[in-house]
Amino acid sequence: MKPYNQLSAEELKVLHAELLEKYNEYKSRGLNLDMSRGKPAPSQLDLCMELLDVIGADGEYTTKNGTDIRNYGVLDGITEAKELFAPLLGVKPENVFVGGSSSLTLMYDAVCRAYTHGAYGSERPWCKEEKLKFLCPAPGYDRHFRITEHFGFELVTIPMVEGGPDMDAVEEAVKDPAVKGIWCVPKYSNPLGTTYSDETVKRMAALKPAAKDFRIFWDNAYAIHDLYEDKQDVLLDIMQECEKNGTQDMVYIFASTSKVTFPGAGVAVMGMSDNNMALMKKHAGVQAIGYDKINQLRHVKYFGSYDGMLEHMKKLGKALQPKFETVKNTLDKELKGLEIGRWNDPMGGYFVAFDSMDGCAKRIVALCSEAGVKMTGAGATFPYGKDPHDSNIRIAPSYPPVDELKTAMELFCLCVKLASVEKLMA
Amino acid sequence: MKPYNQLSAEELKVLHAELLEKYNEYKSRGLNLDMSRGKPAPSQLDLCMELLDVIGADGEYTTKNGTDIRNYGVLDGITEAKELFAPLLGVKPENVFVGGSSSLTLMYDAVCRAYTHGAYGSERPWCKEEKLKFLCPAPGYDRHFRITEHFGFELVTIPMVEGGPDMDAVEEAVKDPAVKGIWCVPKYSNPLGTTYSDETVKRMAALKPAAKDFRIFWDNAYAIHDLYEDKQDVLLDIMQECEKNGTQDMVYIFASTSKVTFPGAGVAVMGMSDNNMALMKKHAGVQAIGYDKINQLRHVKYFGSYDGMLEHMKKLGKALQPKFETVKNTLDKELKGLEIGRWNDPMGGYFVAFDSMDGCAKRIVALCSEAGVKMTGAGATFPYGKDPHDSNIRIAPSYPPVDELKTAMELFCLCVKLASVEKLMA
Repeated sequence: MKPYNQLSAEELKVLHAELLEKYNEYKSRGLNLDMSRGKPAPSQLDLCMELLDVIGADGEYTTKNGTDIRNYGVLDGITEAKELFAPLLGVKPENVFVGGSSSLTLMYDAVCRAYTHGAYGSERPWCKEEKLKFLCPAPGYDRHFRITEHFGFELVTIPMVEGGPDMDAVEEAVKDPAVKGIWCVPKYSNPLGTTYSDETVKRMAALKPAAKDFRIFWDNAYAIHDLYEDKQDVLLDIMQECEKNGTQDMVYIFASTSKVTFPGAGVAVMGMSDNNMALMKKHAGVQAIGYDKINQLRHVKYFGSYDGMLEHMKKLGKALQPKFETVKNTLDKELKGLEIGRWNDPMGGYFVAFDSMDGCAKRIVALCSEAGVKMTGAGATFPYGKDPHDSNIRIAPSYPPVDELKTAMELFCLCVKLASVEKLMA
Repeated sequence: MKPYNQLSAEELKVLHAELLEKYNEYKSRGLNLDMSRGKPAPSQLDLCMELLDVIGADGEYTTKNGTDIRNYGVLDGITEAKELFAPLLGVKPENVFVGGSSSLTLMYDAVCRAYTHGAYGSERPWCKEEKLKFLCPAPGYDRHFRITEHFGFELVTIPMVEGGPDMDAVEEAVKDPAVKGIWCVPKYSNPLGTTYSDETVKRMAALKPAAKDFRIFWDNAYAIHDLYEDKQDVLLDIMQECEKNGTQDMVYIFASTSKVTFPGAGVAVMGMSDNNMALMKKHAGVQAIGYDKINQLRHVKYFGSYDGMLEHMKKLGKALQPKFETVKNTLDKELKGLEIGRWNDPMGGYFVAFDSMDGCAKRIVALCSEAGVKMTGAGATFPYGKDPHDSNIRIAPSYPPVDELKTAMELFCLCVKLASVEKLMA
């Protein structure tokens, strides 16, 4: 098949009729499939059920420091958990804060604390600033953008380019003292699957923002979420780079086991400098006495070590491979050469990003929805939910079983074709 | 022995020498005992270890609504948990927010959300108000006071009287529009053990504060924490009273299983009106996707029902009885008739409050500490940590075993005597 933009008006008309017939056939099947969020599949969660048996009624409940994990205390996490997660964050164990089960909450709270009381180095709480701005590499993660929107920040779009956010744009933007931070998903980024290049990480760590309390929110959500053992992206360690530049206070590093063990019932962690840690403990100590230490020790005992966690991730990678391959193969088979879309081929993470012809994304998602396939809302990957090109669509293949995913992807491709033909005919 | 204030100077001198000798004897024993915080004893925690076995690798993980508790979602808690905790809070299940493991965090976050974005009915976020005040019935809970101090509220002391906070003072204080709320521990209050009288609850629910977004923080931490089956305080249901007055939006009700199952690894809940719930969900949805549903279902299955939870609390009451009786008996034996202190005899909760002669509390706590017995800091039960009479001391008998507690209490009484004699001799 030749590229759609080389078809004549008559050919488009015929094609449109064909596609519409197929589409109506799908619609009549009453599908109910979901590719909207990066949710692990039940079969994936089954792979760590033994986690729930690690600490039982006759189990151990004392840490090596003698802390009774069943009782109050230990605000920043038990030593064993700090040690387990330190290599995940790339910081020393004493620079790990283990808090609750959600890294999103850790991020919200970090923004919120700076807003109400200021971060380390702030001249005043952020709520006392006249104007607040936050850098949002886009396409990116909608929940990140929503946090800063919620706190009244102006969201400044930074284009994602090869190797991460456009660092020229970032370096320029941070000259504005109203710019207080940047959202980053540095490995297998949501939704592009991009891993920041060494140069990007180095330039990030070397930033000299006008705001002394500027913070890089380094959400390493997919730090160890590789699909393959033999081909993996490697991310430079940001804290090491910051140390070379004396900018360690500029970065907050986040991770969690939401997509390692159980979403919502995992362990969330934050890595930061000594200065940031001291201030965090002071503030967090007003908010909490301590987090769930039983769940912390549960994770420590289940994995045994960081290497144990990496071994576990190989199993999850294997479980996700056929899903990502189904997405890739269906896109290749159905759309290659038609010049109506581009997509990536990530080595890890939870998403495949698809770029349609300009002005087609909303229509594609609506067509999918009408036929029973739920996608992430078009535009969700941009600040304020507005994609200037109306072209980016996030595909989340992790949840449905492969056979359902195949059907959903076939329908998706059909909707891409249909929306593209409509556009070309208009 | 006659009251100390009737002793002659000579008698006091002799007594002082005797007491000092005994005190030095205690000091030489190198004690290391802790009556400082309301921490459950390990033997108490042992009583619910089976909780940890309820959901294992081969356990159920689907709610009656079909939710997979291992995966993302359900911001405000699984239905089963809402139903379990509704009677604890005295609200309908749909008015229960199940969030994390710490009610302190729920309280902090409720203050914080009102500070950054306003509560339901706020004209503006609290951080945009010129002046903020909060009512602090005292003696009260230091961590409550610290939250509002942290957010820059002026802490207004409300005296605790028979039957709860002095409601004349409260009704007068809320005429000031800067007054945004009040901290309450309505049953077996920390540290007095007071349960609010029906009249107090009714007057609380009938408040007409100048601030339209005034909130009663009703921390029912000891709602079901009775010591005895045959003598228990009964607290009127605040939400029912509020409904009679049309003031349902004025109250946030808090509880947790920190002192029911495991502190830090329990379940915290918040009860509130429809309006408050709708706003809370909107804001909390930016901060979190959902809380630990596995731990929620663990608690649901372990207790079976609210009645099951009450049955469990009988066991805990029995475990705590000998400790409270040790405190009471030692105080009675050592101090009765000396007129150098008053103490209460609570039917539940976690504390016994002791009032020394004015100006002696700090000295007593210091003497205890020097001899190896750690007490809550004198003054901690008052706003800003300043007890105007320097007389209130919080005794927390739950943690030490009975024999250690007996020793600690004997030393405590000795220190009370010594500090009182010093005071009378000065």
